[in-house]
Amino acid sequence: MLGKVNHIAIAVPDLAAATAVYRDTLGAKVSEAQALPEHGVTVVFVELPNTKVELLEPLGEASTIAAFLEKAPAGGMHHICYEVDDILAARDRLVAGGARVLGDGNPRIGAHGKPVLFLHPKDFLGTLVELEQV
Amino acid sequence: MLGKVNHIAIAVPDLAAATAVYRDTLGAKVSEAQALPEHGVTVVFVELPNTKVELLEPLGEASTIAAFLEKAPAGGMHHICYEVDDILAARDRLVAGGARVLGDGNPRIGAHGKPVLFLHPKDFLGTLVELEQV
Repeated sequence: MLGKVNHIAIAVPDLAAATAVYRDTLGAKVSEAQALPEHGVTVVFVELPNTKVELLEPLGEASTIAAFLEKAPAGGMHHICYEVDDILAARDRLVAGGARVLGDGNPRIGAHGKPVLFLHPKDFLGTLVELEQV
Repeated sequence: MLGKVNHIAIAVPDLAAATAVYRDTLGAKVSEAQALPEHGVTVVFVELPNTKVELLEPLGEASTIAAFLEKAPAGGMHHICYEVDDILAARDRLVAGGARVLGDGNPRIGAHGKPVLFLHPKDFLGTLVELEQV
C-alpha cells in the first residue's frame, strides 16, 4: 500500500534560521518560503535527490505546529508523509484494521494540492503519519 | 553537500509489533530483524520505493535508543540520515561553520558498514542528523 516517502516534516521556531541551516550549513537546495494560511504554516521545501524535507513554521493562532513547538522549542521531526495510490481505499483498510484517522476521517486538500489524511501517532509508533494521494 | 535521504529512523519499544504495523497495517515490504549489538539496536528495514524507514529496538544496556524511549515510551522519530560523498570533507565544513559532531568527531562504521557521523540536534533544528558516506 505504501508508496514513496513524499516528505519528512520538521517543525521549526524560526524559518529563516532553519532555511540557512539547510542551505548554508548543509549545502542543500531550498525553495522560497510559502505561506499556507489554510494549513497554519509557512513552509520551505528542502529538495533532496530522492525526497523532500519540509521546514514548517507556525502561521496564525491555531497552528498545530505552534502546539508542537511548545513541547519542543528548538524544533523537531513532526511527521512523515507516505504516498498512496488511492487514499480512500487506504483509509478504509486502515480503519478496518483498527487504526485511527485524525479529524472527521475524510481526506482534505493538503499543502501540495492533493488529498491527504493524518493518522493517529498512537497507532503508528509515536509517529504522526500523513498519507497523500499522488 | 547533502545527497539522498538514506533512511528515517523510528525508535520503537517492541520491534515485532512495530514490524507488524508497517507490514500488515500499512502494507509495506519489511526485512528480517537484524541484531547489531555494536550499535545497541535490533533493526528492521522498511523498504519504500525511494528510501528506507528503519525501526530500531534497544539491544543491550547502553543503547541510546533505550534513553530515547524513556522520554517517548510509545516510540517516535529518532533521526534522519543523509548521504554524503565525502564524510571527512562534510565534517570539516560543518565544524568550520560551528556545528557540533557527536562523539570524538571521527566517523565510525555504521549499521550499513559505511562511515557515519552524528550531528548535534541542537545545531540542526532539534533533529538528530546522521551523515553516511556512500
